[in-house]
Amino acid sequence: MSNSTYTPPAVPWASLRNARNPQLTSDGRLQHLLTLEGLSREMLMHILNTAESFLSLNNHDVKKVPLLRGKSVFNIFFENSTRTRTTFEIAAKRLSADVVNLDMQTSSTSKGETLLDTMDNLAAMHADMFVVRHNQSGAPYLMAEHLNKLGKKDIHIVNAGDGRHAHPTQGLLDMYTIRHYKKDFTQLRVAIVGDVLHSRVARSDIHALTTLGVPEVRVIGPQTLLPSGLREMGVHVYHDMAAGLKDVDVVIMLRLQKERMHGALLPSEAEYFKHYGLTLDKLAHAAQDAIVMHPGPINRGVEIASEVADSSQAVILPQVSFGIAVRMAVMAILSGGHAA
Amino acid sequence: MSNSTYTPPAVPWASLRNARNPQLTSDGRLQHLLTLEGLSREMLMHILNTAESFLSLNNHDVKKVPLLRGKSVFNIFFENSTRTRTTFEIAAKRLSADVVNLDMQTSSTSKGETLLDTMDNLAAMHADMFVVRHNQSGAPYLMAEHLNKLGKKDIHIVNAGDGRHAHPTQGLLDMYTIRHYKKDFTQLRVAIVGDVLHSRVARSDIHALTTLGVPEVRVIGPQTLLPSGLREMGVHVYHDMAAGLKDVDVVIMLRLQKERMHGALLPSEAEYFKHYGLTLDKLAHAAQDAIVMHPGPINRGVEIASEVADSSQAVILPQVSFGIAVRMAVMAILSGGHAA
Amino acid sequence: MSNSTYTPPAVPWASLRNARNPQLTSDGRLQHLLTLEGLSREMLMHILNTAESFLSLNNHDVKKVPLLRGKSVFNIFFENSTRTRTTFEIAAKRLSADVVNLDMQTSSTSKGETLLDTMDNLAAMHADMFVVRHNQSGAPYLMAEHLNKLGKKDIHIVNAGDGRHAHPTQGLLDMYTIRHYKKDFTQLRVAIVGDVLHSRVARSDIHALTTLGVPEVRVIGPQTLLPSGLREMGVHVYHDMAAGLKDVDVVIMLRLQKERMHGALLPSEAEYFKHYGLTLDKLAHAAQDAIVMHPGPINRGVEIASEVADSSQAVILPQVSFGIAVRMAVMAILSGGHAA
Repeated sequence: MSNSTYTPPAVPWASLRNARNPQLTSDGRLQHLLTLEGLSREMLMHILNTAESFLSLNNHDVKKVPLLRGKSVFNIFFENSTRTRTTFEIAAKRLSADVVNLDMQTSSTSKGETLLDTMDNLAAMHADMFVVRHNQSGAPYLMAEHLNKLGKKDIHIVNAGDGRHAHPTQGLLDMYTIRHYKKDFTQLRVAIVGDVLHSRVARSDIHALTTLGVPEVRVIGPQTLLPSGLREMGVHVYHDMAAGLKDVDVVIMLRLQKERMHGALLPSEAEYFKHYGLTLDKLAHAAQDAIVMHPGPINRGVEIASEVADSSQAVILPQVSFGIAVRMAVMAILSGGHAA
Repeated sequence: MSNSTYTPPAVPWASLRNARNPQLTSDGRLQHLLTLEGLSREMLMHILNTAESFLSLNNHDVKKVPLLRGKSVFNIFFENSTRTRTTFEIAAKRLSADVVNLDMQTSSTSKGETLLDTMDNLAAMHADMFVVRHNQSGAPYLMAEHLNKLGKKDIHIVNAGDGRHAHPTQGLLDMYTIRHYKKDFTQLRVAIVGDVLHSRVARSDIHALTTLGVPEVRVIGPQTLLPSGLREMGVHVYHDMAAGLKDVDVVIMLRLQKERMHGALLPSEAEYFKHYGLTLDKLAHAAQDAIVMHPGPINRGVEIASEVADSSQAVILPQVSFGIAVRMAVMAILSGGHAA
Repeated sequence: MSNSTYTPPAVPWASLRNARNPQLTSDGRLQHLLTLEGLSREMLMHILNTAESFLSLNNHDVKKVPLLRGKSVFNIFFENSTRTRTTFEIAAKRLSADVVNLDMQTSSTSKGETLLDTMDNLAAMHADMFVVRHNQSGAPYLMAEHLNKLGKKDIHIVNAGDGRHAHPTQGLLDMYTIRHYKKDFTQLRVAIVGDVLHSRVARSDIHALTTLGVPEVRVIGPQTLLPSGLREMGVHVYHDMAAGLKDVDVVIMLRLQKERMHGALLPSEAEYFKHYGLTLDKLAHAAQDAIVMHPGPINRGVEIASEVADSSQAVILPQVSFGIAVRMAVMAILSGGHAA
């Protein structure tokens, strides 16, 4: 199937695949990390616990462990993201892996090679892990199923964000952050604010929050930026910040893609900020010790006011630190260093 | 001499240089790898044998050996090629070298610096090896001769493809592949199919096949895509696939540069595929156990049918694996780790 | 403060900041390297001496030392410079650091994130050192002050060139070169030739030369390319090469930015070369054993004749080698491996 002609299957927002889960082996171990959907509470907690063991490492003088020594990790990014690529590169290097960065926007796929031919070629270089970002929902699935079909059990795929579908390591680092500050998931109200419709982060967060037993997950946003089917997922929908933020313990702000401003989906930036931008005033509706999260990079004055971003309630930078540890944990678990 | 104004010498297709071989030291050791032309059968076999010793390494848990530890390998690519650059990067890292990738399309040469000034500067950073790709035939020669003239014996150049001239590591990995599947070169019929005129791969393959004693080397392609002088090299020329593939043991397909389609050299893509695209039907003319090779990336439906590319006769992916081992071998031999 | 709207403070050419020196700790140790201005003679000599100890390493078979093992060095280049980035990458890898290259021209800052938000994010990945190039004078100051304010003493900034302000590692390698060939700074005449106005190299050189006790520093160039305030710095100004080069021991040629040719500041290239291009004839005015330096990449026939660039008086390539050692020294000292 040609990469350029690949059209993702039409699926409900909540779930790309219901029938099967190509990321798990027959005995339930993690072979790939494609989505948080379908991962058990135990698996999620195992990843978070492993991340915790790596976190302390970041404060050591020598930050490396030899768990992936001699392994080759390929960052293959069909969609540019310097920051996400960097977090995976740092994580892999701290595990002592060799890292090769491939900018797929300028590579052979642009010469007409198909996505699977490209992957077969890279696999033939004895890659151990592919970290994949793709603007098409489901592309990492396609790759994982292909590897599974070939019986290549030694190669692992980590989804670093696919289309509007999933961004599982972001979801995991968000869970790590919430656990770090709030300890117990089962007593929480969590609100996700903004452009949920286009957000792979929101989707991954909702799956994880639900699995981890958060009793009340809310989304807040204008009708045009919310997908249908949220209520069926058990999510509470709000269009008003005052109501939606009331008494929540965790606020997850989503990044607003400015390019959508020019479409019909959104009013002006100022109008958006007025209604959905997080200010201290609006935040006052939340619980007094509520934390504010954001996947970054933030747009100050668009989805979040500087006074909030710089406040003591914001945990946006700790999220980044936790993100390195979480990605190390995922890589270590996939490569067998920390089997569940 | 300015890079932008450099014009390669007018030479016959078969040979850039007849008079001397700047890649060999006075006592016959490999100082640079610029071309397979003029390398002895013993040297070629030594490289293939060294590659074989590295191949098993790729299946080990820790894929690294310390042969190039502390050495700096510079990938300097004046022509973009993510894939080829990656194979050299992987090979160098598995030898424990430090690798620096330089995208020369955006660097100082575009600011008016000459090719040799750029190289002198990089050499002054105590580089140990340059892996060079350049769209001008002969550019790596120019660099090698410059280093030789300066007496810099500790710096080695590997030609990763120069213009239409040579692609020696691809030639070597092709030889490795043929030896792996066919064992004995001296009983073989080998056909090279497609745009031979513009192919540095074809040129390197022909030199190596001849040196290794292959008794019958054929090329197949339309008149417009075959260079003159082939018959003088002892190569049999065919314009018809049925005749050309008859009883061959090895089929080497060349990549069709789609951009040539728009010139006068080629009929339409469909027309080309009809006459020279490798289908199972055409492949039936070859020996029953013939192998099908391709330097990649493949254009399915242009020079090769999917049914062939995915058949058990295709050894395109093993070529990639062998390519890593061959490049490790070349680097190790050049740096003195595995002297002949 | 937004990166895109950041305007550097209006300051005299000679000095960005007079009032304070954010690169020194309260007990006078080097926390960041932002400028050579305000560094003591002892500090400069300590850096040069440390570089000397690393220089011999480049000739060893294994060029690495473990001083920065497990440390993460981020090259964050807001302005493209393959060569400078490479020298820092090589230096860091020879100290065994993990190096991450970030092309900031394509990253989040282009998505509207501010410079300081970007840095906070990278710092949250547990970076140990930022090597920063920015087209805005003062950008690395802003970052250093921000880190200092946050009390992040474990993160160090190296200015790899900011706007027209400073290029301290180039200044240091120039001092290393002069000391290597001339031994004693206190008996020298040094001339800096060319576009001094736009040159961060010239500024850094002048500060260092003055601090190191060079009794006579001259600049030579057309009125339009010399800043005001030079005489107040104790620099002798010349508009004529014959007079300016008379009896000098060191000639530092500056690179001519060809893009300025098209503005009103410069006559034609040929006209410029006629008056200020360094030829053997003009060089004959200098001391017989004068050395010729240039930060590279050189424009042959624009600011320097090939006959000079290739002469035995030119020490342009040794400068490059010294540059690696100097950058290793700076990184080692900043990270505490070689405290003053």
